[in-house]
Amino acid sequence: MLDLINELWFLKRDIVSDGFDRALQRLAEAVPMTIHEYPTGEPCWTWRIPEKWTCRAAYLETLDGRRLVDYAEHPLHVVSYSLPFEGVVSREELLRHLHVHPTHPQAIPFVFKYYDRDWGLCASQELRDSLTEDGYRVVIDASFEPGSLKVGEVVIPGESQQSFVLVAHLCHPAMVNDDLSGVVVGLDVARRLLAGPPRYFTYRLLILPETIGSVAYLSHNEDLIPEMTGGLFLEMLGNDSPHALQGSFQPNSRADRCLRAALPALDPLGYLGAYRSIIDNDERQFNAPGVRVPMLSLSRVEAPKSSGHPPYPEYHSSLDNPSIVSQERLEASRDVVLGLLDAYERDQYVVNNFKGEVFCSGYGIWVDYRRNPEGHRCLFEIMERCDGERTVSDIAAELGITFQSAWEVVSLLQEKDLVWLSRVPHPTTPRR
Amino acid sequence: MLDLINELWFLKRDIVSDGFDRALQRLAEAVPMTIHEYPTGEPCWTWRIPEKWTCRAAYLETLDGRRLVDYAEHPLHVVSYSLPFEGVVSREELLRHLHVHPTHPQAIPFVFKYYDRDWGLCASQELRDSLTEDGYRVVIDASFEPGSLKVGEVVIPGESQQSFVLVAHLCHPAMVNDDLSGVVVGLDVARRLLAGPPRYFTYRLLILPETIGSVAYLSHNEDLIPEMTGGLFLEMLGNDSPHALQGSFQPNSRADRCLRAALPALDPLGYLGAYRSIIDNDERQFNAPGVRVPMLSLSRVEAPKSSGHPPYPEYHSSLDNPSIVSQERLEASRDVVLGLLDAYERDQYVVNNFKGEVFCSGYGIWVDYRRNPEGHRCLFEIMERCDGERTVSDIAAELGITFQSAWEVVSLLQEKDLVWLSRVPHPTTPRR
Amino acid sequence: MLDLINELWFLKRDIVSDGFDRALQRLAEAVPMTIHEYPTGEPCWTWRIPEKWTCRAAYLETLDGRRLVDYAEHPLHVVSYSLPFEGVVSREELLRHLHVHPTHPQAIPFVFKYYDRDWGLCASQELRDSLTEDGYRVVIDASFEPGSLKVGEVVIPGESQQSFVLVAHLCHPAMVNDDLSGVVVGLDVARRLLAGPPRYFTYRLLILPETIGSVAYLSHNEDLIPEMTGGLFLEMLGNDSPHALQGSFQPNSRADRCLRAALPALDPLGYLGAYRSIIDNDERQFNAPGVRVPMLSLSRVEAPKSSGHPPYPEYHSSLDNPSIVSQERLEASRDVVLGLLDAYERDQYVVNNFKGEVFCSGYGIWVDYRRNPEGHRCLFEIMERCDGERTVSDIAAELGITFQSAWEVVSLLQEKDLVWLSRVPHPTTPRR
Repeated sequence: MLDLINELWFLKRDIVSDGFDRALQRLAEAVPMTIHEYPTGEPCWTWRIPEKWTCRAAYLETLDGRRLVDYAEHPLHVVSYSLPFEGVVSREELLRHLHVHPTHPQAIPFVFKYYDRDWGLCASQELRDSLTEDGYRVVIDASFEPGSLKVGEVVIPGESQQSFVLVAHLCHPAMVNDDLSGVVVGLDVARRLLAGPPRYFTYRLLILPETIGSVAYLSHNEDLIPEMTGGLFLEMLGNDSPHALQGSFQPNSRADRCLRAALPALDPLGYLGAYRSIIDNDERQFNAPGVRVPMLSLSRVEAPKSSGHPPYPEYHSSLDNPSIVSQERLEASRDVVLGLLDAYERDQYVVNNFKGEVFCSGYGIWVDYRRNPEGHRCLFEIMERCDGERTVSDIAAELGITFQSAWEVVSLLQEKDLVWLSRVPHPTTPRR
Repeated sequence: MLDLINELWFLKRDIVSDGFDRALQRLAEAVPMTIHEYPTGEPCWTWRIPEKWTCRAAYLETLDGRRLVDYAEHPLHVVSYSLPFEGVVSREELLRHLHVHPTHPQAIPFVFKYYDRDWGLCASQELRDSLTEDGYRVVIDASFEPGSLKVGEVVIPGESQQSFVLVAHLCHPAMVNDDLSGVVVGLDVARRLLAGPPRYFTYRLLILPETIGSVAYLSHNEDLIPEMTGGLFLEMLGNDSPHALQGSFQPNSRADRCLRAALPALDPLGYLGAYRSIIDNDERQFNAPGVRVPMLSLSRVEAPKSSGHPPYPEYHSSLDNPSIVSQERLEASRDVVLGLLDAYERDQYVVNNFKGEVFCSGYGIWVDYRRNPEGHRCLFEIMERCDGERTVSDIAAELGITFQSAWEVVSLLQEKDLVWLSRVPHPTTPRR
Repeated sequence: MLDLINELWFLKRDIVSDGFDRALQRLAEAVPMTIHEYPTGEPCWTWRIPEKWTCRAAYLETLDGRRLVDYAEHPLHVVSYSLPFEGVVSREELLRHLHVHPTHPQAIPFVFKYYDRDWGLCASQELRDSLTEDGYRVVIDASFEPGSLKVGEVVIPGESQQSFVLVAHLCHPAMVNDDLSGVVVGLDVARRLLAGPPRYFTYRLLILPETIGSVAYLSHNEDLIPEMTGGLFLEMLGNDSPHALQGSFQPNSRADRCLRAALPALDPLGYLGAYRSIIDNDERQFNAPGVRVPMLSLSRVEAPKSSGHPPYPEYHSSLDNPSIVSQERLEASRDVVLGLLDAYERDQYVVNNFKGEVFCSGYGIWVDYRRNPEGHRCLFEIMERCDGERTVSDIAAELGITFQSAWEVVSLLQEKDLVWLSRVPHPTTPRR
């Protein structure tokens, strides 16, 4: 995954741009992918597809021609979707258009003005502090033209039309942890799913520009929405921090209950947070009114949104480069995602073939307390909840144990033909 | 409102009496009112209408004719519904029938014995302490005769037969905060409603003698009960204290949820309390079995019932006179009631015309953080709850903000045609 | 009850054995009882009926014939269901088969190996410590043969087929508090019910060997299971400790709600615990999947299971003899059970004949605050909950008062014909 990051990270991947298209094209070579195109101006619910933006060159010079800032050196030097501009401006006016990072004096900030219609450059605080002359020359050779927004979709068909959706955005130019890390993890997950055994659910991986990409896809695939039973947004999966699982707008959804119960065994340091409490991304569009897909979000956010701090120190700056992510952490995150999806596949209603308590010694039922201390301790409590009204994650949540501990016991009972698994409730309690 | 109080407060407004009738007649001149009459002996559910009580004169004298207590000086000097009595009594017997105030040595207490059948006088503790002679002469020239209990009803018809009921009692003779203040506030509210734009709900203001008046009206208007969707009892609205909103027996009713969310913006010092925790009045009959109208209660109770103290220092005594109420506070209370009713009118289900998140910059949606800090902070959280399953007050309660903050944002969305309001749920979530 | 205990306690009441049969036969003389028989090998859901076990003689001797342990002296000296064995064994091997009590150095422990297939003796720690020779002679003259497991059932027929089940086990040889105390209390309760007035529910008392007895009965009476609306397991009712009421797997069942509200008035020192938190017994089979009878458990457990300590000091040892139980405590427990069953009979929906608040002075309704302080304090709160949607125990739970306090007020209202009682909900709230 790190190779792919090294290859693609520095591209100018603005929301509708040649750079975005090139990156997506490269990803499509790695895994079978459908690329959906939505032309500029196309209505998407309350939105419209924006124009393609191209910046050929941009720089800031002293009046005697000394180049201070150059887009050729770093894609972040121009505000994404800046208006074109060429001229000499006073120092005062320049400063109104020259953005810096609030906390890192040497970093170039990531600034975007998709709908503001303004021009702007970005530079380090240090450079800005060095500007003492009265006037400067600015050139932003940018253009807006009809184009098409692209959404890449990888489908792993399952037994059922019901789907689980993975989403990552690709539109943050020259940055890595946010957002390329989520893309490469999602891609590797998709590759494993394609190579693995057939699954019950259909899985969809969407790679898109943030917000407008999700709105474009959803508004053009309304028929798929009722089939989406859950989802997971992926981002910030390369930095050095435990996993954070943010719940959906519907905290009692099957997806929420199941993934929440499965995380602790996958990352013992991982933590949980309510919807909108950790980080905001495309899961907002999926959770929104008229869509209401219970989409959670997985990241390695260090400081949740509610803390008032940036999610990690290098966030939205030129410091978010390949040096802050590691192949090992990307692989660990991929395995967490795969583990969450495994739980989602398995989280069925557990229906008892038995009545009363099971004659455990007769069936040789025994759970190793070293391998599965929670399952060992809760053997009878798990068994007595196998009644066709509870899923594996329901049982885990009631007992305060992990999904995996409960699953292992249920699995053992299934082997002995004492229970079977059902996608729908199948109550066995006598009616009174 | 204070003028009306000054005009009516000293009347002998016992539950069925000429004084009550005269007061109600005067109120009927101020606003179009139907006066219902229920004759003595008429069965009202488990109750019966009592006789009319008239006290022509009453006094306490020394045996040498020195008058110590005289009903002509203050209506509270005789127990309401006292039996007639005339004769010389020993000091000991007199004291058994002479009631004083438990805490105010100079005040005459308010004592009533509607169903006890006893005679009694009331006086100050100071007077009582001065009684050292062996015998006294008592005269209570009172009579019981057939009459009719009166209930005044002001109806402000709305688009719907469904109604919201305001109730105040008028039967506390020669007192002001309890109960005339609630009557005049209710009357002024009714006047404003009659003068204002048409409303969805029908509003009814009932002015009646406590308890038996409510039972009489309800038992004779059973067909109206299923149409009563909420109510508010009014009392103690002139004294110097913040507003107290007491919930109904059904704390999750629409009326409770809505009024509770609306109070803080109307009186930032106002406080909330559960049913029966602040003060007991006619809302008990409306909340009772077989009626179950969710009726809240608004007052300026200083010490809630649960504190064990009287609701305000002058309660049920001759000190409850016009000096403890102010026109300014009465007007403020009227505005609180009007604000609560506005919220009740507006508290509809918010149905989204949009899907996904709204393209806010495209629609120019922006909430001024100075005018509406809660709405500004929660703009997206409000929008994402517009799903046809939540009313404005549901949204406000979920976000812990005021009804008014949520309403302003919903209003803005309605202006932009992004939502519409519905009296019934209209879910827009795709069915899975 | 103590007489019966003295008569039966020392019998060798192993799960399928002549001693068990003899004890059950004796109980059947005390009250009309059906004895169900289930032959060895009979399948019972996931279980099978075990063989009858008989131990004719057993002892441990030194090689020179000095007898150290003799089954003839105490039934606990042999592991229940021990394999037969005869021979000279090394001290080392003997110790692997000689069980002692973990905390009482002078007590013989109760050890059973129904399904382990091993031989074993039990003795005091002191005896074990005295074994210093190299070899010993062991004789266990035991045999396994076809037999039949017995379950005694006393039925007290009621107006309804719906039943409440009392269960006690009888299979703990030569012990008293666990388990004979529960048996004799259950028997005395049954005797009182048979002698008392007709009841609404049918009551069944089951006396059986633990676990396998319940499984045998339930699996052969599946048609009765849907009629079982509640149950109570009885055990450890003679020792000196307050009552512990353990809830069922369904804490919101009618049985749980009602018995929970009724206990405090029956034993002010009694305490409540959740399912599986106090002590595990046959209620597990009744609460299990496919059965799900809400069966609670009543005992005098001193240290609940969750404490990690034994339920009482003499538990599962030869110290559990008649000296630790008293007739007085057995009678007190019987009265608690009868009190709980009375509440269960009475716990109907309270339907109002009245609307509004009741005219209490007109009906002479008054609750003595000395006899029933809770009922006096909550008179109006109880009345206003009589709406055909709440049972007596629902009202008690909402108000945090005992079942009995609420019942007395409801009873008074019933006398005045103000309410009637219904086995099913009968809502009287007007439909809005």
